[in-house]
Amino acid sequence: MSAAAAYEALLAHAKETTLLASTAALLAWDQEVCMPKGAGDIRAEQLALLARLQHQRATDPRVGEWLAAAEADPYVQQDGDRAANVRGLRRDYDRATKLPAQLVAELAATESKAQQVWAEARSASNFHQFRPWLDRIVVLQQQKADCLKQPGQSRWDALADLYEPGMCAADLRALFAPLRERLVELRQRLTRGKAPDDAFSRIEIDEQKQEAFVRAVVTAMGFDFRRGRIDRSTHPFCTGTGGDVRLTTRFHKDNVLDALGSTMHEGGHGLYEQGLEPQHFGTPLGEAVSLGVHESQSRLWENHVGRSEGFWQWCWPIAEQHLGSACAQHSAASVHRAANVVAPGLIRVEADEATYDLHVMVRFELEQDLISGELGVAGVPERWNGLYREYLGLQVPDDRSGCLQDVHWSCGLFGYFPTYTLGNLYAAQIAAAAEKALGGLEALFARGNFATLREWLRRNVHRHGRRHTPAELCKLVTGAPLSSTAFLTHLERKLLPIYGLA
Amino acid sequence: MSAAAAYEALLAHAKETTLLASTAALLAWDQEVCMPKGAGDIRAEQLALLARLQHQRATDPRVGEWLAAAEADPYVQQDGDRAANVRGLRRDYDRATKLPAQLVAELAATESKAQQVWAEARSASNFHQFRPWLDRIVVLQQQKADCLKQPGQSRWDALADLYEPGMCAADLRALFAPLRERLVELRQRLTRGKAPDDAFSRIEIDEQKQEAFVRAVVTAMGFDFRRGRIDRSTHPFCTGTGGDVRLTTRFHKDNVLDALGSTMHEGGHGLYEQGLEPQHFGTPLGEAVSLGVHESQSRLWENHVGRSEGFWQWCWPIAEQHLGSACAQHSAASVHRAANVVAPGLIRVEADEATYDLHVMVRFELEQDLISGELGVAGVPERWNGLYREYLGLQVPDDRSGCLQDVHWSCGLFGYFPTYTLGNLYAAQIAAAAEKALGGLEALFARGNFATLREWLRRNVHRHGRRHTPAELCKLVTGAPLSSTAFLTHLERKLLPIYGLA
Repeated sequence: MSAAAAYEALLAHAKETTLLASTAALLAWDQEVCMPKGAGDIRAEQLALLARLQHQRATDPRVGEWLAAAEADPYVQQDGDRAANVRGLRRDYDRATKLPAQLVAELAATESKAQQVWAEARSASNFHQFRPWLDRIVVLQQQKADCLKQPGQSRWDALADLYEPGMCAADLRALFAPLRERLVELRQRLTRGKAPDDAFSRIEIDEQKQEAFVRAVVTAMGFDFRRGRIDRSTHPFCTGTGGDVRLTTRFHKDNVLDALGSTMHEGGHGLYEQGLEPQHFGTPLGEAVSLGVHESQSRLWENHVGRSEGFWQWCWPIAEQHLGSACAQHSAASVHRAANVVAPGLIRVEADEATYDLHVMVRFELEQDLISGELGVAGVPERWNGLYREYLGLQVPDDRSGCLQDVHWSCGLFGYFPTYTLGNLYAAQIAAAAEKALGGLEALFARGNFATLREWLRRNVHRHGRRHTPAELCKLVTGAPLSSTAFLTHLERKLLPIYGLA
Repeated sequence: MSAAAAYEALLAHAKETTLLASTAALLAWDQEVCMPKGAGDIRAEQLALLARLQHQRATDPRVGEWLAAAEADPYVQQDGDRAANVRGLRRDYDRATKLPAQLVAELAATESKAQQVWAEARSASNFHQFRPWLDRIVVLQQQKADCLKQPGQSRWDALADLYEPGMCAADLRALFAPLRERLVELRQRLTRGKAPDDAFSRIEIDEQKQEAFVRAVVTAMGFDFRRGRIDRSTHPFCTGTGGDVRLTTRFHKDNVLDALGSTMHEGGHGLYEQGLEPQHFGTPLGEAVSLGVHESQSRLWENHVGRSEGFWQWCWPIAEQHLGSACAQHSAASVHRAANVVAPGLIRVEADEATYDLHVMVRFELEQDLISGELGVAGVPERWNGLYREYLGLQVPDDRSGCLQDVHWSCGLFGYFPTYTLGNLYAAQIAAAAEKALGGLEALFARGNFATLREWLRRNVHRHGRRHTPAELCKLVTGAPLSSTAFLTHLERKLLPIYGLA
């Protein structure tokens, strides 16, 4: 087989693998949005079969042969597109083939059961129910890391690299330490200011009205409903591919700002997916580069757009139109302030923009020590509670609102949490670069012009797919390596005036 | 490998094939109910990949080896369940392996394109646009039939056997000839009676009210919403498996009886699927026996229940509750009559209970002659129009409401149409057997008791899956081979009094 034929075979194979993966994603979406409750067993079997077929394909020895042939081809080496695709597929293939089938099966079986035990333990608020399962998961994750890790990588680094290529604990510690200090300082400083009135976020509003409102906003953002849809689910998420992106959101009868934030967040993920180049569908160039960059797109729309003053100037008449009398006695300015209340709490997924990352850092500390073996699983609650006191100034009353709150570890997601904070930092740095390039973004938002920002993101971030590493992309888009400067500047510039501390 | 191990391997393989098929069915459901319009290309690729994977599995040579080993095993031969499963899987394997891959691919490509051309030709009402494609399809279907046919089978018989095992043209002609005569006679006789007032079916009613009404009815029928759901689509259908059955229905602003009939029809299909034995999921014993028997379950609920006087006595207060003022000036008795109007028309899918089968017979005549080669494709419109004059007494004004109205032939479905009429005949004969066994069914319906009938159908029809052939099942359930007697008796007993001709 010629090198050119090997490259074509590689891409055709990758595309079919993507079609299988997108089929599984649709089944998972259906499970959360449409599936009748009684169909859970069959759905689990369908998904397990698709996972097995995907793993078979991903580890097909022919892929290794095609890769070797393509990598040796000078034409591929010189062609940017081809080289990027081959690099991406090499990464995927090596990761898939490094794990023995026996370990993959044991991870899947253990994590499936552990999720159920975790849910029961959380509901009973009893970490010790979950402890033996977490013990086992940590051991399996250590084994997984040992299979994956490259020379010089720690176990944790090997796991984290699955979610954010190139991410390592040392870099994150360097990034997080000063950030944590400044966030703790900001949190303390804000307590001396005047907290905005957030009554608006507690008004009872009919869910159908909320839905019409958030649909109007996500439509204005430019989410393309010909290539996507939005539904409800218990936990909001975004799934699917460029041609068929499925968002979900949620509604509480008395928290329209939560519905708006969730929708803009998932809408940001959706715009990234819709901004990938259709002609690269099924290949690395047609895929999102990392979880951190994906999260930057959701946080950018949720926080840098949706919590800005300019946005609320445009949005307020839309809110009045859809929400009616709920808007009486409020204004664009008062709701902009209400959307920016900082109130440290125990639950990560309910955290405000200024304290969210402190939650992430608690988990980052813990999981490094769990994976390295420095911390035994039995010590998790005490360590967790200590860090919440230190970072957030809060006493954790029980395991349910403490170390049992997140599903991640029960699913074997170690090395994942920091991508949330990377998302926030990338978002701020990218938003600052967009402001520098485009000028006066808030004035555009105030006129309902979101297209200028969206198209800039599409050109500068989305369309690249996996052409660059996340670090390269950051440098290319923002002109600098990632730091926390833009994020802290953004928070302080926005929050201090709102709290009367400017 | 031991014979017992071969049998287990066979079943495990069959179950995985079913999981893939049910995955494809869910994607097809999603395409009609949820999918954004722009996702059509990716969906087509996903479905084509799943079809290829299913065909690979269905023709896997190991299946042939396992089958041979299992068939030779005296234990399998003596065990009813195992013997039935092996018989069913042998049938499926032989059918799948008899078709060369090249022909399968050419059929798929031609039919996919032909469907588009058919839709355009129908919209232009111009058969000659479609003619070259139908020409090609007929040739390919003849080739397919030549691959499939067994000694003594005609080409048409070989195709029809795919949908209704054991069905052959000679038997159908014997069944249909006297039926046609009596139906034509009944149609003419009713013209001398007094047609009921059907104003109720033309009242404009809000679609949400219609939806609440039909949901109440399908719930009363016993459709299990923990293992199924109901949605809207352009053309109503039922898909899915025992654990997850998806019905769709449709609403016109001014035809609530159409919505009710469609929902009860698909609900009847759904009850069959939900009545299959869960422990046999994925094997022939857990599958519906034939299209004709499937259709009998839908027509039984649509016509024998939903167009009965007893049903309307129960249903009328439910209708009043959901449809409100639309029900003023109508009554259970008047709407029962309105639901039974006989009015011969040009369109099969809009046909009433007494003339529907005449539409089917037109197609049966035509496709036998097309497949045998006696009729050239160019002659289709003239022959079609002649048969509509003869059977229905109607002039066909154009191809759109004539020979271009059905999608079936463009999809390569030759030998399929008669299953609709078999469904009507089975339904009547099964309903008569149920009446004989249970007594006073209409009185039960009048009290909202549908469980007695439903559980009888479950015991006597549904739970058998593919244990028996359709002919064996008919004999087992009704004590006699299929005939048109029960159907004609049912029609005459109901319609003549309504038309004042009793």
